[in-house]
Amino acid sequence: MIYIDNAATTPVSPLAAKAVSECMTSIFGNPSSLHSAGQRAAQVLFEARQTVAQCLGCTAREIYFTSGGSEADNQAIRSAAHAGKKKNKLHIISAKTEHHAVLRTLERLKTEGFDVQLLDTDENGAVTAQQVRDAITDETCLVTVMYANNEIGTVNPIADIGAVCREKGVPFHTDAVQASGHIPIDVQKDSIDMLSLSAHKFHGPKGVGVLFARKGTALESLIDGGAQERGKRAGTENIPAIVGMAQALKESCGEMDSIAAQQIAIRDRLIEGLARIPHSALNGYRQKRLPNNVSFCFEDVEGESLLMMLDEKGICASSGSACTSGSLEPSHVLLAIGRTRETAQGSLRLSLSKYNTMQEAEYIIQTVTQTVEYLRSFSPAWKDKVSGIKPYVF
Amino acid sequence: MIYIDNAATTPVSPLAAKAVSECMTSIFGNPSSLHSAGQRAAQVLFEARQTVAQCLGCTAREIYFTSGGSEADNQAIRSAAHAGKKKNKLHIISAKTEHHAVLRTLERLKTEGFDVQLLDTDENGAVTAQQVRDAITDETCLVTVMYANNEIGTVNPIADIGAVCREKGVPFHTDAVQASGHIPIDVQKDSIDMLSLSAHKFHGPKGVGVLFARKGTALESLIDGGAQERGKRAGTENIPAIVGMAQALKESCGEMDSIAAQQIAIRDRLIEGLARIPHSALNGYRQKRLPNNVSFCFEDVEGESLLMMLDEKGICASSGSACTSGSLEPSHVLLAIGRTRETAQGSLRLSLSKYNTMQEAEYIIQTVTQTVEYLRSFSPAWKDKVSGIKPYVF
Repeated sequence: MIYIDNAATTPVSPLAAKAVSECMTSIFGNPSSLHSAGQRAAQVLFEARQTVAQCLGCTAREIYFTSGGSEADNQAIRSAAHAGKKKNKLHIISAKTEHHAVLRTLERLKTEGFDVQLLDTDENGAVTAQQVRDAITDETCLVTVMYANNEIGTVNPIADIGAVCREKGVPFHTDAVQASGHIPIDVQKDSIDMLSLSAHKFHGPKGVGVLFARKGTALESLIDGGAQERGKRAGTENIPAIVGMAQALKESCGEMDSIAAQQIAIRDRLIEGLARIPHSALNGYRQKRLPNNVSFCFEDVEGESLLMMLDEKGICASSGSACTSGSLEPSHVLLAIGRTRETAQGSLRLSLSKYNTMQEAEYIIQTVTQTVEYLRSFSPAWKDKVSGIKPYVF
Repeated sequence: MIYIDNAATTPVSPLAAKAVSECMTSIFGNPSSLHSAGQRAAQVLFEARQTVAQCLGCTAREIYFTSGGSEADNQAIRSAAHAGKKKNKLHIISAKTEHHAVLRTLERLKTEGFDVQLLDTDENGAVTAQQVRDAITDETCLVTVMYANNEIGTVNPIADIGAVCREKGVPFHTDAVQASGHIPIDVQKDSIDMLSLSAHKFHGPKGVGVLFARKGTALESLIDGGAQERGKRAGTENIPAIVGMAQALKESCGEMDSIAAQQIAIRDRLIEGLARIPHSALNGYRQKRLPNNVSFCFEDVEGESLLMMLDEKGICASSGSACTSGSLEPSHVLLAIGRTRETAQGSLRLSLSKYNTMQEAEYIIQTVTQTVEYLRSFSPAWKDKVSGIKPYVF
């Protein structure tokens, strides 16, 4: 089996899996307990927090452990919004291509009276710092723009956007779930006030993530109860998962350059190979994209059928976001970059990990090419096109 | 080391740990993915949901996986409250001895205009169905009463309370975090509409819990985003932890009777032995308590010092709730059952697991007795008492 759906989730790295398993059986105490079993757990929690902080360029006290990226997004955005409301600032700036964890949270805030402005992106899915600058008003309480897109891999100019927000005094959050562990992130250089990440996207365990919140950021708890995470996130800390996440992030950041180089080579070969398929189009920039993301639209192909056939041929891929699979709606990201509803239905996302090889890429190119051709042989629309009855439209 | 703080957290059972580790390395797919790696994950998720449902006496569709008990409490209570608000029902009934995950959520709801009524308990920490009946009005939108108390082990008459709520048509939630896996729970017999549990309290992994919500219960999401958990809990499902939880719950429920019998014997020996310490008092009922809970107050002893000294002697115990350790405030539970602030500071909670033995109990009785005596030798208040200068007051 070729697993090339690492934007959906990644296999846990052997060292991270070992860390989780060992911690789960040997350091089971509750870090809030005063006794030695609890204090051992508190110690590894402390160390994990420092490791994560080092990887992001912040202090350990600015790290809040959550159950994942969605929770972190929810908490960050609601916190900034409600802090803004106290100052009568009800304007929030975001982008049309954000993950649903951001968009749905913004929808909820709309019902609370917030004015949510979703920026258009360019035809590759990026927003610019100038757009953010133009959109900011005296009422803006939050800018939230994703670091890199989960479907098409487009990387936003986060440092530039952060600089504008810093200059204007507007809190800046970024959903870095797809970027963390894959491309360099430094919350200082990037002027980020809040950042969300999720461990299972970089070979860490599921069910754990991070909310970075810069010192001085007003944070409200999403889960009320005990005083864990400095009173901002109740519930016994998930120590084994946190330790596994720290291990995975350290690994990912440590080997980032060499893995990115390897992935870019495979990615570019995939893009080159799949672009030869007639009436195919790369989604997102050719270069300004995640090292591990390949996203295509194929005209007159039903994406779900393509995935099923690829699966039968041993290739696990995705049409876009796993979080919205099964939905009949076309991807909001593909629509935002100007694909038609029909074309958006024929999407394929290949997302690499360090475990994918160039040999796999060759097999994938061959198999996708054949499968697209096969599926099109059943498509009346395609037949009309190639017979010249209807003009080519992409 | 004798670990007897299982109400704080439990060691993961070997079978549950194995399930987590195996699942983490072999079934890493995202259950939302359409390919076979995802569908294998979806299959084990489905099976785990069925296992948990069987243990609680409900259907799989009534099970929502969360990151733990606190999240489940928050979601249940906010959901019922906000559903009530739509019908202009703003009255919520709970009890003074609830966990902070409940109490703090209720405090938040107060700021939203809800009228929260916290019932007094009897001197053992229990509320009665009659109290609930008397408190219910036409404006009551929720009754939330814990199954068993986390500090003093008192078991509430949940089936009776549930019957009253059912009769009156008021949604009934119970925080069963301390009860699940320890005493029999049947959401049908107990007329429970919503129930929270946490895996790490019954030898499952940390970072995972369950919200049971009866079919037809209005549930609002706490974490917005993807459509996981039928749209009520966004975020990639934590499959390894969920599988481990199902395994642990099945084990706990399967061997519940024999383990309870074993624990009750040890518990009762501990109670008998510690009750011989002068000026000691058992907290909670002698019998109507969790099989694994022993809770005492010792006059003129500083609980934290007692814990530290016990820890040095190889006994990991607690003063009460781990979630509030380090706090200078006396336990709200001990105050609710009528202990003075001074006496409440001298509390000791011993919470057993299936791994504790009668031999350990004997060592604990001996060690606690000696340590209490030793600590009192430094207490001026105690010296006054035993010299007869001041009258004994408990």
